[in-house]
Amino acid sequence: MSQKVTFYHAGCPVCVAAENKLVDLVDTKRFEVELVHLGADKGRIAEAEGFGVKSVPALVMDGTALHINFGADIAALK
Amino acid sequence: MSQKVTFYHAGCPVCVAAENKLVDLVDTKRFEVELVHLGADKGRIAEAEGFGVKSVPALVMDGTALHINFGADIAALK
Repeated sequence: MSQKVTFYHAGCPVCVAAENKLVDLVDTKRFEVELVHLGADKGRIAEAEGFGVKSVPALVMDGTALHINFGADIAALK
Repeated sequence: MSQKVTFYHAGCPVCVAAENKLVDLVDTKRFEVELVHLGADKGRIAEAEGFGVKSVPALVMDGTALHINFGADIAALK
């Protein structure tokens, strides 16, 4: 069974650029990437914050947040 | 032929944590990850800066720098 990783973004140019690179890298035989647009799906902001996400884009894997470059502060999406 | 991506780090805890997550994600059938310790291999700092790397850990893919969390400013490694 593939492991789920979550890419939180807000559709910003930095987010899209990071998504294009990062998602391409992933071994899709082992991992499933869920893309979550926190601007459109504000109900999941608290979930992202729970994983320590401070800004987007960010990838959460095994409960650990990896912030990739800087698009927007998560506070700006609320 | 696999595409080369380069992970620049400095052996810092944030670097090691990011490396463990990120390198595991990679589809090694399509990508080859080179790990470069800029603290130990200062001769490659200029190369990293040329790709726009400002801090470590960072992954360079297709000439684009993805900064992953923040371990150390590249200036601190010189």
